[in-house]
Amino acid sequence: MELNLKKITIAGVGLIGGSFALALRSAGVKAELVGIGRDPDVMQQALELGIVDRVAENAADAYSGADLILIAAPVAQTSVILSQILPFLGPDTVITDVGSTKADGVAAARLVMGERIGQFVPAHPIAGRELNGPAAAISDLYAGKKLVITALPENPKASVSLVEDLWKICGAQIHFLTPEAHDAVFASVSHLPHLLAYALVDEVSQRENADILFQYAASGFRDFTRIAGSSPEMWRDIAMANRDALLHELDAYIANVSATRTALAERDADSLLRTFSRAQSARQRWIEAIEAAEKDRHAAV
Amino acid sequence: MELNLKKITIAGVGLIGGSFALALRSAGVKAELVGIGRDPDVMQQALELGIVDRVAENAADAYSGADLILIAAPVAQTSVILSQILPFLGPDTVITDVGSTKADGVAAARLVMGERIGQFVPAHPIAGRELNGPAAAISDLYAGKKLVITALPENPKASVSLVEDLWKICGAQIHFLTPEAHDAVFASVSHLPHLLAYALVDEVSQRENADILFQYAASGFRDFTRIAGSSPEMWRDIAMANRDALLHELDAYIANVSATRTALAERDADSLLRTFSRAQSARQRWIEAIEAAEKDRHAAV
Repeated sequence: MELNLKKITIAGVGLIGGSFALALRSAGVKAELVGIGRDPDVMQQALELGIVDRVAENAADAYSGADLILIAAPVAQTSVILSQILPFLGPDTVITDVGSTKADGVAAARLVMGERIGQFVPAHPIAGRELNGPAAAISDLYAGKKLVITALPENPKASVSLVEDLWKICGAQIHFLTPEAHDAVFASVSHLPHLLAYALVDEVSQRENADILFQYAASGFRDFTRIAGSSPEMWRDIAMANRDALLHELDAYIANVSATRTALAERDADSLLRTFSRAQSARQRWIEAIEAAEKDRHAAV
Repeated sequence: MELNLKKITIAGVGLIGGSFALALRSAGVKAELVGIGRDPDVMQQALELGIVDRVAENAADAYSGADLILIAAPVAQTSVILSQILPFLGPDTVITDVGSTKADGVAAARLVMGERIGQFVPAHPIAGRELNGPAAAISDLYAGKKLVITALPENPKASVSLVEDLWKICGAQIHFLTPEAHDAVFASVSHLPHLLAYALVDEVSQRENADILFQYAASGFRDFTRIAGSSPEMWRDIAMANRDALLHELDAYIANVSATRTALAERDADSLLRTFSRAQSARQRWIEAIEAAEKDRHAAV
């Protein structure tokens, strides 16, 4: 893939932005990689680790003349960063982001960018580690992972292609969803489980006998609650940003758990077995599909 | 530890019973290890793998003259096995089990055993693998794992000590709880999470767009739902056997999730952050305690 890019600016050079930079560099992309961020120590670290070529002195330096700007900061900061970019945004610059929720971010971007909204191509890489910051960045974070582009009607085809091409270079598999479909899907398979895991650990921790309960919690509990180890601030922001879809999922789940409760209360063992069996089979099929895809990917490499 | 045992009988030589036998053997316990079970092929396999010294021809052969009998079969079979043991139960034989729920099993055992209930010392090893059957048995399955004895008022001290000593030989850490306390603890940290994970996967699998949802489910969903890959029959039996404690936990959890839903519906971001933060801190302390204990154990070895 031949890309004629001179300058790529990364706003927020932590795990996600840093891994994007490392992946591009390791694939031989020649563009200058410029970093900008709120914390000078973090930026210095990103520079010393060779993740960016230089740290911008200010917004003008960072954004003027960039071919692509990647916003890789917490979703709550997207609007602020877009308004910092706007005075220096060239007519051909493409902006993209990595936010875990899309409809809310797109609405905020429309407010800030107005008629220039077409220059913003929203995206979301489905990848992460339990570590954060530039030191956690790795060049293969996105290899084989999904990257969802929630393109807007205003996005020129070439701008969407550029975002697509850059993430393909990082090794990601490109998917397209509308912002609303994206948010509904991730409310179901990501945001809801996070909220449920937080609620369970919180529930246990508030008990008088919490020490005894945790003492006997074993590997099943550990895996079930692993996501409750995630950043509370980040997940508060995601829950608030995707509030409507998450409420919808919560209601459906509470209804399903309540039905299971009724089956148990009524000693309806057959109904419990049906629920458990459907779940086990569905999960088994899912795991087999993942493993088959993984195998194909390795065979293709 | 010097134990003068001549014959140990294991009823059900799968992962749990087989690993108990292998652990005793590997620790140099000299007693004859006799296996008995419903499936002749499984018993033959246990024999060929060297897990037991011989397979009993019938109940008389299995249970007569045994110093200890371990019942390592699904909880729903405990009563049946106890009634098969009873005609051949010597006055000094100690029976123990490995059931995941205790109050229900103890009540059933009292019905079957009557005045001889003191010979039954209920126990529960907190250990497992995702594999089953004698081929999955390993000698260090119980090393460093918890073993809960839910001793009965009728149990002679020497009988409890024998069960304790044998599990210590297997490497387990011995804990004591009443059957009721045991069931309440495991309803909270094991049975409830299983039911919640089954309910989530079932909920997703019943959606019209289930394929799309599963397609975007990532590692967080995979860990959260790992326990929904467990045997539906086994977990139906556990849920039914521990119904009252599990209903109690379900109600507390549904109340907590509903409160979280209210906070989200009311855009109370501070309340969400408090819940998420309490959970994250509690989990972090718990993981640190586990890791410290693990380190101590390795240092002590």
